[in-house]
Amino acid sequence: MIPRLDDEFYMQLAIQLAERVIGQTSINPPVGCVIVHGGRVVGMGAHLMRGEGHAEVHALQMAGELTKGATAYVTLEPCSHYGRTPPCCLRLIEAGVKRVVVGCVDPNPQVAGRGLTALHDNGIEVAVGVLQEEAKSLITMFAKFMLTKLPYVTMKTASTLDGKIATHTGDSKWITNADVRERVHALRHRHQAIMVGIETVLQDNPSLTTRLSVPALNPIRIIVDSKLRMPLDARLVKDEAAPTWVLTTTRANEHTAYGLEERGVRIIRVNDGPVVDLTLAMKLCAKEEIGSILLEGGGTLNGAMLKAGLIDRVLLMVAPKIVGHPKAPSVFNFEGVESMQDALQLEGLQVETIGDNVIISGSPLNRKLRELQDAQEVNAACSQV
Amino acid sequence: MIPRLDDEFYMQLAIQLAERVIGQTSINPPVGCVIVHGGRVVGMGAHLMRGEGHAEVHALQMAGELTKGATAYVTLEPCSHYGRTPPCCLRLIEAGVKRVVVGCVDPNPQVAGRGLTALHDNGIEVAVGVLQEEAKSLITMFAKFMLTKLPYVTMKTASTLDGKIATHTGDSKWITNADVRERVHALRHRHQAIMVGIETVLQDNPSLTTRLSVPALNPIRIIVDSKLRMPLDARLVKDEAAPTWVLTTTRANEHTAYGLEERGVRIIRVNDGPVVDLTLAMKLCAKEEIGSILLEGGGTLNGAMLKAGLIDRVLLMVAPKIVGHPKAPSVFNFEGVESMQDALQLEGLQVETIGDNVIISGSPLNRKLRELQDAQEVNAACSQV
Repeated sequence: MIPRLDDEFYMQLAIQLAERVIGQTSINPPVGCVIVHGGRVVGMGAHLMRGEGHAEVHALQMAGELTKGATAYVTLEPCSHYGRTPPCCLRLIEAGVKRVVVGCVDPNPQVAGRGLTALHDNGIEVAVGVLQEEAKSLITMFAKFMLTKLPYVTMKTASTLDGKIATHTGDSKWITNADVRERVHALRHRHQAIMVGIETVLQDNPSLTTRLSVPALNPIRIIVDSKLRMPLDARLVKDEAAPTWVLTTTRANEHTAYGLEERGVRIIRVNDGPVVDLTLAMKLCAKEEIGSILLEGGGTLNGAMLKAGLIDRVLLMVAPKIVGHPKAPSVFNFEGVESMQDALQLEGLQVETIGDNVIISGSPLNRKLRELQDAQEVNAACSQV
Repeated sequence: MIPRLDDEFYMQLAIQLAERVIGQTSINPPVGCVIVHGGRVVGMGAHLMRGEGHAEVHALQMAGELTKGATAYVTLEPCSHYGRTPPCCLRLIEAGVKRVVVGCVDPNPQVAGRGLTALHDNGIEVAVGVLQEEAKSLITMFAKFMLTKLPYVTMKTASTLDGKIATHTGDSKWITNADVRERVHALRHRHQAIMVGIETVLQDNPSLTTRLSVPALNPIRIIVDSKLRMPLDARLVKDEAAPTWVLTTTRANEHTAYGLEERGVRIIRVNDGPVVDLTLAMKLCAKEEIGSILLEGGGTLNGAMLKAGLIDRVLLMVAPKIVGHPKAPSVFNFEGVESMQDALQLEGLQVETIGDNVIISGSPLNRKLRELQDAQEVNAACSQV
């Protein structure tokens, strides 16, 4: 009813700015910035597009002369290195900002506390960790990418109450309700790439684009296709709505590959062998600066990705339907575990109801990533001012 | 867990932008604007200061060339008249915006649908009423001012469970807890003026400024002082922290008035007669472009303002304390009603708990304002495209 007026009040706005640009900054993290001078918001901005101004640049520009003596609220530690744009620290210093309030430290090893130190060394008062949890959750995907050089993979799948993704005849339209299906399209906008197996392409001939009531961004379409069976007349090849990448092996038929490449498809030969090495494939995607992937695979690809420990978050859309039959395809199709104790376990579970559908979300236990994150936090804390 | 991506998604951001600038736009309403182009936020802005650019101007500037073919989300109908700045409609038209989504119609009779018509007549697709309730609640104060030419008055008062604002010895520090007291200061930032009676000045010698952990704006300090008893050495006269206005009568002592004016105090002789006519006083304040007043009066001023129908919202902070004694001053001190049926009644009640304090908020029934608002909505609807 009566909000407080404090650092959190302004950081909240910076976080809101960043939240609304998730999906449009490519490999870069979404960042928001608010400039306050003399009790008045005088500038606001977010990072809008990779290669263009960071959040601070837009906000400082709006503030004009009023940056002198102002406080800047930034969701993420201002960068300290020359990348595609000059370091934001320098800009804040040059603009005469008096105080910088930061949501969380940058996990980018090129920054990781150096930005804070640079500000502090130039006589700027620095506060870190205001609304830290919210600020960190904005950059979950970016942090995973920076720490592991692997993309953050969100696996989305829709199933019936009995864990089926189609009936035994293969019919799957539709399992979830319209609202959920629309939200899945919003998820596509929020990821750099979408990934499916070739079976999905052969069966559904999908376009894998983002179709909503407002214009939205299409992710890069990545198809795991070990035997290079992608048809030349597939929608993904013909529609030119977004780049299409095919992950295959060095054994892929040269002629087929040439035909696809001629039509603009990018062929990535991940490894030798009969099937695509998914871990290597993810490393290659990361090298190509894909930091987030929405996996909409069938049961086989989902199962393989899960087993390889490449999934960061599972989003299970469950509809209150039961279709039966042992041959109806399952949401996860992989050689199972023997004892219940060895089951893959999700943690950080969230449950939400949308209409008559239940969304269950969680992260497979991933000790390796956890350790890296903890180590990074210790490092950042050590370098903090 | 998974947000939708639609008109409401972007309007929500525009509303968040406006929410955080409440209190810094003087008589102007807080407005937020977001520009979206090709599935990407390309501009964002809010009205930051009266006389300077409206929300649309800042957002269009950030968007640069990308305004062409873009959608603009604005919390309030873009203005169509030449005021202190050129009309925003014209700017949107010139910028080549393709679609404008508006939260609510402008209650300003100079706009009230004309902005929408102008956009529509220039071939721009217009949608009105997206998140309308939220958009309207942003401009509650502005709407009252525009429709009635009276300021919106929020009465804030702190009392014990037995309705006392001090003990029978006059001690009142503190009734509410520290968190509530801090929020009251945030309320000062959000109003153009703060009003108390001369008794409060004589007893407490308050500064009536906004004191928070971050810099904030001080409201104009308005003192109701029928007999012009304001001491020359009062903090309000000496501290120069904000303008001080004294509402008195034509009978006020000329010499005292001169002494105060010499020290920068503004003396407003509201009417002839022994006491200040509060209705006339409010009209004069509105003429001086005061659109919102936080009333922190004692029981007598609060009671008189209530009786005159000049209060729009009551904020009662109740602490779980009991002080007793029939002579301990009450939160409302006025000749009461005879039957319970005639009691002043609050509607739109909201109750919130902050620590061990209870905040009860509501609006006294005000049929006149309600009628005006309804009429305005009908008018606006008629002029809508």
